Amino acid sequence: MSLQDEVRGLASAARRASAALKRASGEVRDAFLGVLASLLENRVGEIESANRSDLAAGEIAGMAPAMLDRLLLDTRRIGAIAQDLRQLARLPDPLAERFDARTLDSGLQVHKRRVPLGVLGVIYESRPNVTIDVAALAIKTGNAAVLRGGKEAIASNRVLLGIAREALADCGLPADALQFVDRSEREASLALLQQDDLIDLIIPRGGAGLHAFCRQHSRIPVITGGIGICHLYVDRHADLERALPVIRNAKVQRPTVCNALDTVLVHREVAARFVPALVALLGGDGVEFRCDDASLPLADAVPEMRVRPAGPQDFDTEWLALVLGIRVVDDAEAAMAHIERHSSGHSDGILSENPELAATFLERIDSAAVYWNASTRFTDGGALGLGAEVAISTQRLHARGPMGLAELTSYKWVIEGDYHVRC
Amino acid sequence: MSLQDEVRGLASAARRASAALKRASGEVRDAFLGVLASLLENRVGEIESANRSDLAAGEIAGMAPAMLDRLLLDTRRIGAIAQDLRQLARLPDPLAERFDARTLDSGLQVHKRRVPLGVLGVIYESRPNVTIDVAALAIKTGNAAVLRGGKEAIASNRVLLGIAREALADCGLPADALQFVDRSEREASLALLQQDDLIDLIIPRGGAGLHAFCRQHSRIPVITGGIGICHLYVDRHADLERALPVIRNAKVQRPTVCNALDTVLVHREVAARFVPALVALLGGDGVEFRCDDASLPLADAVPEMRVRPAGPQDFDTEWLALVLGIRVVDDAEAAMAHIERHSSGHSDGILSENPELAATFLERIDSAAVYWNASTRFTDGGALGLGAEVAISTQRLHARGPMGLAELTSYKWVIEGDYHVRC
Repeated sequence: MSLQDEVRGLASAARRASAALKRASGEVRDAFLGVLASLLENRVGEIESANRSDLAAGEIAGMAPAMLDRLLLDTRRIGAIAQDLRQLARLPDPLAERFDARTLDSGLQVHKRRVPLGVLGVIYESRPNVTIDVAALAIKTGNAAVLRGGKEAIASNRVLLGIAREALADCGLPADALQFVDRSEREASLALLQQDDLIDLIIPRGGAGLHAFCRQHSRIPVITGGIGICHLYVDRHADLERALPVIRNAKVQRPTVCNALDTVLVHREVAARFVPALVALLGGDGVEFRCDDASLPLADAVPEMRVRPAGPQDFDTEWLALVLGIRVVDDAEAAMAHIERHSSGHSDGILSENPELAATFLERIDSAAVYWNASTRFTDGGALGLGAEVAISTQRLHARGPMGLAELTSYKWVIEGDYHVRC
Repeated sequence: MSLQDEVRGLASAARRASAALKRASGEVRDAFLGVLASLLENRVGEIESANRSDLAAGEIAGMAPAMLDRLLLDTRRIGAIAQDLRQLARLPDPLAERFDARTLDSGLQVHKRRVPLGVLGVIYESRPNVTIDVAALAIKTGNAAVLRGGKEAIASNRVLLGIAREALADCGLPADALQFVDRSEREASLALLQQDDLIDLIIPRGGAGLHAFCRQHSRIPVITGGIGICHLYVDRHADLERALPVIRNAKVQRPTVCNALDTVLVHREVAARFVPALVALLGGDGVEFRCDDASLPLADAVPEMRVRPAGPQDFDTEWLALVLGIRVVDDAEAAMAHIERHSSGHSDGILSENPELAATFLERIDSAAVYWNASTRFTDGGALGLGAEVAISTQRLHARGPMGLAELTSYKWVIEGDYHVRC
């Protein structure tokens, strides 16, 4: 069988299974999560054994220690995954939601009900825990899924998805609702992206390169995300003392993620006070600075800091590292113009005690998340109270910003009448 | 300039204008609608003159009278368009909506605000009134638009869009927010469908062929719709007297539209009573019938009706005409199985006095609109109270079923804090 036919076969099987899955109750879908949690805990030995072979292959291939750590599954991590599954099971069933109910003048009663999207295609990179995360989110929302993980974790993923399929069968659900593309060729991803009659949505989980690849080659709608060139503007009316820990949090707490801060814009009137304090504080955390002409001498005056003039691309770079751009702006208008030009539309904010100016900023800046006096790090499904996070979308259709369970659903219109006819 | 470059230039201009349009207030956007209404009324002569040249070209090309009528613009029709514009102006501004507001445990305040999608690409067929309809819906929702109408109406569309651009300028809005692709080549549509960095959404307005064309060639998300193979199931518990006018309405009132009925499924226990009554009633309206083996003798027994055995494709055909398929089913399960197999997922319903069965039907049938004791003809933005209708979507992402103003928007997350940092 050709790779193309093999992938198409998996997608067809998922599509057939999705019809049965749509009819399963929320109780059964939640029971699956509990069974999966227990199976994972009971099969730690088998999982670790497969994971060791991935790790050994990674070491031979010269994988960096940080990457090897991302690949690792052990008793503790599997226990944490099982706890996450049990917590997901306790979240309300998104498919139970009815909304927009109303009675029309004609007496016709109308409401909407959430329904599954159908079949998800998920393409992801090295971390094998994503396999269970995706399987769980898909089944919780009544969706079948075809998973295509990175080749570094292929042995781990094979075992994990086998266990998930067992858990489906144990609960009387169709095992075919979860499919694993057990091929490491790039062509397997390409084949998956062509199945537009079988797959409803592609979700890439990984870096900017993976998102671009999916967007370029897919005939299926793709949830685009993953790139955050994020800004905070320190206004002349900001409480400068309180602004410092916010910027530090946004930059330093977890620099490798998409909601981490990339550029600070500082109002000219407060630059002489604020820039040196910022450089001193964040420099102590190991942050490097890329400064425009106006902020450079202010930053350079702080002893023993790593300060460089900003290069031509630096304000269009997502750092994903302990690097921070600093630019002095004449006023809020210049800050907003900078953000409109350089932001990736992920997360941008203003720090100011001026509510009118903040309102203008929140209205004008059209990013997925806009902030007033808070760290950009809150752009996250968990931090914003969604219970579970599927992805962070920087596109505008269907869902924008953090996506929770509801964003993995569609809806249908339910119309109830008394033998109504249209006039 | 190549056609490709020309179309790209229009899309670029729309993209630039969309930034200014996003900042315009709801009052100004509504003022545009009023100004446009008045300009159209004042310029009837100019519009009619252009329209006459389209009509003359259509006659020379041998266009059918029904098609010529669709093309026609006269004082009465332009007056109706102007009234529609004034009514649209009175609808609430969708961009004023704030929703999902809540205060998180951390004290962080979160809500969502509607924002425009950005730039719409609209490809449509012969009716020139669509030009004004699309321009109005786009500006009402803060979106720029690039319009590509059918070549049959090109002179009319050119004048209409010129007037719309004048109305934008009169209101201080950027005229470039509305762009008209003044080329009749198929390649102009293809070029439009490639501008995925400039256009956010493609909306085809027309028949199934146009939808398929857009879906196949677009690199931009497409709102798919337009195909309705619609069913009503007459249960043995239906009030048969009252079911007749519902089916008549669904089939006869406007047979050429997507929410018109295509197939009636009749429970075996009531078929001998119901099928002859149905055939006698709808036959009087000129309906032809395509019957399965069980309904054929029942229908054939009614004198002077046009009854034929259903062919192999007949239950998979959207008739768009006074033709109705009839099939007898053993029970509700068989009816639901038939619908799951043959429906296009647009509008399907059950006629029954049994609420438990109706609930099962409404839960299980996964079409954009599901009905209990009502005509499928209600699947329409106006009939369902949306105020305005943009399209009827049969896809599952972003919007499903009738799309109103809100479905032409995206949203952003607004997060307000007191110098909050993430733990």
